[in-house]
Order: sequence, then structure tokens, then C-alpha cells
Amino acid sequence: MLMSRAFQEEDTIIDVCGVKIGGERPVVIAGPCSVENLDQLSIIGKGVKEVGADMIRGGAYKPRSSPFSFRGLGEEGLKILQQVKEETGLPIVTEAMSTDTLETVYRYADVIQIGSRNMQNFHLLSKVGQMDKPVLLKRGLSATIEEWLMAAEYIMQEGNKDVILCERGIRTFENYTRNTLDISAVIACKKMSHLPIIVDPSHAAGRCDMIEPLTNVAFAAGAHGIMVEVHNEPRKALSDGQQSLDLEQFSSMMNNIDRLMDRRIKC
Amino acid sequence: MLMSRAFQEEDTIIDVCGVKIGGERPVVIAGPCSVENLDQLSIIGKGVKEVGADMIRGGAYKPRSSPFSFRGLGEEGLKILQQVKEETGLPIVTEAMSTDTLETVYRYADVIQIGSRNMQNFHLLSKVGQMDKPVLLKRGLSATIEEWLMAAEYIMQEGNKDVILCERGIRTFENYTRNTLDISAVIACKKMSHLPIIVDPSHAAGRCDMIEPLTNVAFAAGAHGIMVEVHNEPRKALSDGQQSLDLEQFSSMMNNIDRLMDRRIKC
Amino acid sequence: MLMSRAFQEEDTIIDVCGVKIGGERPVVIAGPCSVENLDQLSIIGKGVKEVGADMIRGGAYKPRSSPFSFRGLGEEGLKILQQVKEETGLPIVTEAMSTDTLETVYRYADVIQIGSRNMQNFHLLSKVGQMDKPVLLKRGLSATIEEWLMAAEYIMQEGNKDVILCERGIRTFENYTRNTLDISAVIACKKMSHLPIIVDPSHAAGRCDMIEPLTNVAFAAGAHGIMVEVHNEPRKALSDGQQSLDLEQFSSMMNNIDRLMDRRIKC
Amino acid sequence: MLMSRAFQEEDTIIDVCGVKIGGERPVVIAGPCSVENLDQLSIIGKGVKEVGADMIRGGAYKPRSSPFSFRGLGEEGLKILQQVKEETGLPIVTEAMSTDTLETVYRYADVIQIGSRNMQNFHLLSKVGQMDKPVLLKRGLSATIEEWLMAAEYIMQEGNKDVILCERGIRTFENYTRNTLDISAVIACKKMSHLPIIVDPSHAAGRCDMIEPLTNVAFAAGAHGIMVEVHNEPRKALSDGQQSLDLEQFSSMMNNIDRLMDRRIKC
Repeated sequence: MLMSRAFQEEDTIIDVCGVKIGGERPVVIAGPCSVENLDQLSIIGKGVKEVGADMIRGGAYKPRSSPFSFRGLGEEGLKILQQVKEETGLPIVTEAMSTDTLETVYRYADVIQIGSRNMQNFHLLSKVGQMDKPVLLKRGLSATIEEWLMAAEYIMQEGNKDVILCERGIRTFENYTRNTLDISAVIACKKMSHLPIIVDPSHAAGRCDMIEPLTNVAFAAGAHGIMVEVHNEPRKALSDGQQSLDLEQFSSMMNNIDRLMDRRIKC
Repeated sequence: MLMSRAFQEEDTIIDVCGVKIGGERPVVIAGPCSVENLDQLSIIGKGVKEVGADMIRGGAYKPRSSPFSFRGLGEEGLKILQQVKEETGLPIVTEAMSTDTLETVYRYADVIQIGSRNMQNFHLLSKVGQMDKPVLLKRGLSATIEEWLMAAEYIMQEGNKDVILCERGIRTFENYTRNTLDISAVIACKKMSHLPIIVDPSHAAGRCDMIEPLTNVAFAAGAHGIMVEVHNEPRKALSDGQQSLDLEQFSSMMNNIDRLMDRRIKC
Repeated sequence: MLMSRAFQEEDTIIDVCGVKIGGERPVVIAGPCSVENLDQLSIIGKGVKEVGADMIRGGAYKPRSSPFSFRGLGEEGLKILQQVKEETGLPIVTEAMSTDTLETVYRYADVIQIGSRNMQNFHLLSKVGQMDKPVLLKRGLSATIEEWLMAAEYIMQEGNKDVILCERGIRTFENYTRNTLDISAVIACKKMSHLPIIVDPSHAAGRCDMIEPLTNVAFAAGAHGIMVEVHNEPRKALSDGQQSLDLEQFSSMMNNIDRLMDRRIKC
Repeated sequence: MLMSRAFQEEDTIIDVCGVKIGGERPVVIAGPCSVENLDQLSIIGKGVKEVGADMIRGGAYKPRSSPFSFRGLGEEGLKILQQVKEETGLPIVTEAMSTDTLETVYRYADVIQIGSRNMQNFHLLSKVGQMDKPVLLKRGLSATIEEWLMAAEYIMQEGNKDVILCERGIRTFENYTRNTLDISAVIACKKMSHLPIIVDPSHAAGRCDMIEPLTNVAFAAGAHGIMVEVHNEPRKALSDGQQSLDLEQFSSMMNNIDRLMDRRIKC
């Protein structure tokens, strides 16, 4: 299988507008759950850029369990992402929720995210598999590691080899955290596959006080990066406020990560 | 919310070519996991019709965890379903896996099935919500009851009120069965919603020796029907053979169900 | 193995002071979570006896997750159970929480209950295995069916063949119910073992509005009985009030069960 | 509550024969699942001592799901542990399975382990709570974090304040690993409680190829130590061979940990 170490021994390194995912240096993707307006995203974008984020994330099309929740700004949100990319130079990670808006997302995104609920939306997998932009594939809420790697294989079989795996917690009986970060899955994927793998501590924990320690955990497990929710005013966020860092918390975390990286490089 | 008892007190009864789902009499949907060829489906269709099945099921587009598994015959499979419908009079339940083939499925199906992996494929939900054929909505592998009902709401908000819920087992630590039938969910849905709800004992158990007892359980819980996998030669089935009844087993089960029904009516 | 069908083909039927568990007629065990005082238990005992309960349950030693919760009346509770047994003739089912109070429990109990948290307390299993009173073995919160049957084997290997299995729900991600009743486990145990198996719908559901439908489900699955929490004033109960039926609800349920039984016998 | 940060702000540091658990320096507990004979334990003890282990683990009383598995050497095993302690100076961590052998275990153990299956064996908790030796309390297979901390509270309420928590993986649907290490639980416990917490990567993973990466993860999460299964001949081990490191693998891991520690101290 194309995703397996048996097929390709060396790690895949994916270049996103100059940012390399899959190599020694872990990558930090930061931004709000949803793009809400230009002001919000611009403040966040500049804020995270200043302290070292490598890419910006933000949802324009939002999968929501309830049809009555905020579902995103659509293409307007993508345009805002583009403006902030122009301001900051940060490449864009944003979710494609369905095939009908995939072409639109493709025009703006630098990395196309496939969300947990769509991990086995095989038609969507096949369509992004025919595109020439990297795909960030989140693990399904109750997907086994094998099913997840098979979903990556669906994409790769169509020709697109640039798949980034993203562990974001699984559903268990424990409710202290929103989901249970399956850190062993990161280790398992690195054994079985050459694809880069990152961790989303925000969705795993569902609470902002655990983002930084879970980031340390992710790097210790060998993750190639993290994707973290950051908002200028978490309490007013239209979605996921309780699990978003504010800019000060993010800045403090990045400082700590930098010291960690330095240590790593010196060894 | 449209799906709730608060919105509509009386049970919704859906008419599928004369077969009523949601009323007193439970409905039996039977057929193979995948449509394999005309001979196969014709034998199965006649067989299940003869002993009292109300509708035929069969997949033409198959969601499979691995891209290397049999993925169904596509429109050819739908045409075979249509031929067998003509032979037997049984209405067709078949899965729509994605929006690109939805129109095709619509032309042949009497009930459009949305599979577990697509329970939160909101674009697909919205599209079937705009159609005028009943939708059978399977519960996601790790979807809460609330998320499942919200997925039904997505469909109904688009205008289509004919949603049939289908409990098919959830993911747990127990591996004796393929999934764990959450029979309480049937009871819970009937409390909270006026929509009909059926049970799929085949996927819940994953083993043919438990289909009949789980059918009894489903009816005791007040399910409005069952959907069960039946194959003329389970050992040669291209998918799900180990959980399919053969025609003799199905016939025997239907006999037992009939006695159960009679009892129920007499009380 | 002693618990297996391979070792003994015919069903084990256990006689508890004349009440037979494991035969055609399902048994109803009812009573409060905790014995609180003589008045309470006497009212409940007479109430459940009047409408057909076969045994009384009530905890004198209560395993509680928090050390600050009510932990039962101890031997005083057992004496109250005995008085109510004298008043009503109902045999006693009560839990032995540990080996140090096991002898005391033994003197009063007709059936010694081993709770979920103690399913793999192998020393306790071994001690009740050396006694000559029936043991009701509840399934652990996350025990596999195999582990549960092995726990029964621990008891039987010591000489006590009178083990009654009790399915009471397992831990899953679903929170609508307190636990998830694994009704398939009842069917599986009946296939693999000759031991009687009953269902505890109260702990499975954790909510009184689902007790009656889950009882129907249990009987449909072939359970040899149910154990249900009943309290004269559920809202004032010292434990498990929200999942206890009041006497009127219990009476109504028993009426419905009687009709069910009649039907069964007539067939 | 005694276990909470609200009650005691500063970390509890427990002294075990001079080894401090709960401070800056993480502690390594190593040894076989079961004590098998003096030769075996002596080789392992010297081997792990040589490369820096702080304590030796080994079971004399083994809780086993099946009554037909090897259940340990009993007091003979404890005597072997004592001899190896005399040879190596390593303090002993060994499990007390039940109250009847608790006094015996107490005489030999430096840390008394309460296993996962006994986490809510409240009588046993209460008895070790009356002793003056540290207790290592493993998390139950499906215990919530809150239930686990409450089990610690049971011990502390009896007077014994020296409780060490041990995360060892929880039961989930994922079967690639034997259990799912809930690394967030380590972070959560450190927030809520002042008690030391260690990680058992051997039981979490159930496979020896993940012990070292999970150890890195544990230290990154702030765990105060690890407990790891080491055997001189894993393939011949009477229990848990597939998840045991051999002495060479353990030595290599300790080398890597030392470098990690040095880094940590230099920062």
C-alpha cells in the first residue's frame, strides 16, 4: 500500500509554500475554529505569526452536529483567509466539507483539511485525491488506526501523495476531556506509515488549560506538528471558545516550545 | 425541532409503495449486503418475498474501509434491483454513498439509505432532504443519540419529513459481537421523536447466529421493523457473508416472527 | 470449563427457597438500592410481594465511588431484610462487598450478590465459591463476556455450581443512559453457558422511564429474570433514586409482564 | 478532600527507602510481571539496577482473568523479592490482591500495589489505608479520573497519605494497543491532586515496541515516573511476555532517558 513503510521507507516531507511538514522541525498551525470576520482573523493572524506560527487555520465551511449552530461564512470566509495570508505570509489550512464546495476551497487553501466526520466520506477522499494540494486527514471519532490509514490510502490511490495525518482524540467513556487523545496512535502511525502526522490538542482536550501540556506530549511522541485553536477573544468565539487559547496564552506556549526545540536541536 | 415529539405528538407513518413503516405492524427489509448479479438477487428476492419480507435491500454503491475491497456494481446494480422489484413487487432500499451518484440512486430507490459513515455528511443529508423519497438514516458508529436525531433534523429542515431511523450497533470494547446493539437507543428515540425507527441486527451482531434473537429484542423494544442481510450462498458473498442468513434460516426466522406477530395482535 | 455448554448441555436451574431461576418462568427480584430502615423496607417488601415479585433485593453494604456517600447500614440492614423476609416470605438477594463481612452476609442472604466492581475480586469469588448458597454475579462495567464467564468459572472451580449471571450495562461513550445495556451479551451467555442469566434494567438505564421497556427486551432475549430497583419514595432515596420505580409504577409494570407471560405460556 | 490541590497545594513527595517519588527526578520501577524463580529475578534485578532502575517490581499474587493461568508463587515469590532486594538494594513494589494476604505482602513490600481490577475494592483500599507503607494505586480499566481520585481518597481517609497514582491505559474500541494510554489523565491528575503519578507503558501498550516512546510521552506529560515490565527472556515469561522488554532493550531505553534527564536538568 502506498501509505506504508513497506512501500516507502523514508519519511514523506511535504512542502507547503516553503513550510516543510514531516521533517525534524515540528510545525505549528494556529487560528480560530471559524473565520468570523476580517478584523478577527487579521488580529489573530498577525498575533500568531509574530510568535512563530507556521500556518493559519480557520474554517469557512463548518460541520456542526446541530443544524441550528453557526455553519461558517462560506466563500467569504475563504476570501478573508486569503487577505490575512497576504498580510502575514502564512499558508492557509481550511476544511473542505463536501464535494460541491471543494473546488472553491481548493482555490484558496494551501492545505485542504478533511474533518473527522468525513474521514470515511469516500467520494470526498477520492476527489481530493485527484487534486495537487496537500490534504490534512483528521482521524474519525471512533476510527481505528487501520481504518484511518486506509482512508489515507483512498486519497493516495487517486494520485495525491501529500497526505498529512492528524490525531484529534477518540470517543471513550471519559468525560473530563472532550475526547481522549490517543497518543499511541501517533507512535503507531509513524511505525506503519511514512506520512507526516500532527496532533490537534484543542479538539482532543476540549479545554484550553491542557493545550500546552498536550503539545509537549505530542512532540515527545514524535509528532511532526500541532494544529491549535487560537482566538483573540475566546469567550466571544462563535464556536469552540472553551478550547481556544487567547493570543497571550499562545505566545507563552510558543516561548516554551522554542526552548524545547532548542534543547532538541542541541542534543 | 421537526423531529421531536414536542413538535409532533403522533407517530409518523411512512408509506413506501403501500408498505407502511411506523405503525403497529413491524416491517421486514431483507436482502444481500451487495448486489452481485441478477441471478443472485433474483433468487434472494423471490426467496424473501415468499416468506413475507416487505422490501428488498441491496447495495450498488458500497462504502468499504479498504479501497481494495469490492465497492459494488454501481448503476448496473441499481438496474438489477429494479428488475427484481418488477419480478417480486418488493420496494427497494439502497444506499446513496455520495452526492454525485445521488440522482442515479434516486431514480431506482424507493427508500434512500444513508450509511453510518455518512451520518454526519451534512451535504448529503441536505441533498436527500430536498428529495421526495423516504430516507433511511443509519446511526453513526459512535454517534450519540442526540447527534443522530440532529442528523435527522438536517434532512427534515430541507423539507423531506420522511426519515426512518436505523439503529445498527455502536463501537465499544466488546468484541464478541461486531458492534454492540444499543437497544436502549430505540426506546429513547421513540420517546423523543415521532419518526419510525428500525433495527439492523446483521451489522449489530456481525454473526448470523444472533440475528433471530436480536430481532425478537428489536420488536420487544418497539422497533417498527428490521433490516436484515440475507444471501443465497453466504459463504460465497462478496461482502458480509459471516453475518448473512441463508434463505432457509431467514424462512425459519420469519415463521417465528409470524407467530410473535399473531400473539401481539391477539393481546 | 464448568460454566460451559460443552461441559453441561442442559440449563442449570437454581432453587432459591422454592423460587426457580433458569427455567421457563422469568423471575422478578425487586427492592431498594439500599436498606434504609424497617419501615421503608417493610412497605416496599409488602408492595412488591403483592404484585408478584419473587425475591427482595436491598443493599446493607454499599460500594460507593465516593467515600462520603451513604455506605449502608451493615448488619442492621441485613436484620431488617430478615424481618421483611419473615413478613413477606420473599427470599433475600443482597451484596457481599468484601470477605470480612461475607460470613455475616451469608447468614442472612438467600442469594449472595457480587457487584460489578468486584467481578474480578478473585479472593471474594473464591470465598463465595466455597459456600453453599447461590451467587448472583454482576458483569463488570467494562468486562468482556469472556472475562465475565471466567469470573463465574472462578466461583465454580471452588465447588459452588449455583451461579446466576446478571447483565447490568457496560460503559460506553453514550450518556443518555447511565450505562449501555448489552442485550447481545444475554444471548451470547445463553449460547456459551448453561448458567441462568438475568438483567438489571435499573443500573443499565439509570432512569426509571426505561425500566419497563428494557424488561420487555430482557425477556425477549431469553433472560431468566430481572432485578429492578423499587422504592416507596424514590425522590427521598439515599441512593439511586432517579433510577428507582415507585410502587405504583412497579405494579403497573408487573401487570404488563403478567400479560406477556400468559402469552408466552399459551404459545 | 485530602487528595485535592485545594487541600494541599504543594506536591506530595514520598520517600521509599531513600527513593523520592513526586519530585523533579522521575523514578523508574522495573521488573517482571510475575516472580518466577530466584535465578530469573536475580538476573533481572541486577540487570535493571546496573542501568539505573530505582525500584524492582514483580508479582507474587497475580490477578488473572482465567483461573487456569499462572497465579504467582505467593509468599515464596515475596521471599525471592526480598533476596533480590538484599542483593541489589532496590526497594520492592508488589501487588496485594486481597485482604487475606495483605499482611504477608506488607511484611515484604516497600510499596504495596493495588491493581486495576481492585481499584474499587473498597475493603482492600480501607485496609491499606491503615498501613504505614506507600500505596501504588492503578487506575481501573474503565474508571473515570474522578472515580480514581475518589479511590485514592478512600485510602487517605483511613490515615495513609502516601498514595502514588498509576495510569495504565483504559479500555476503548482501539485494538492496535492492548489498552489506550490516557495521557491527558496524567495532566488532569496533576492539576487536581498533589499526589505523585506515574505511568505504566507496558500495560497501556501491550507491546514492547512502544514502551520507550510512551515513556518519553509520560515524562513530557510530567509523570513522576514509570513502571515497566522487564524480563530476561520475554519469550519464556509465564505472563505478559509480549509486552516485556529484555535487559538489552531496557538498558538502551535507560541510556536514552538519561540523556533526556540531563537535558531537562540543564534547562
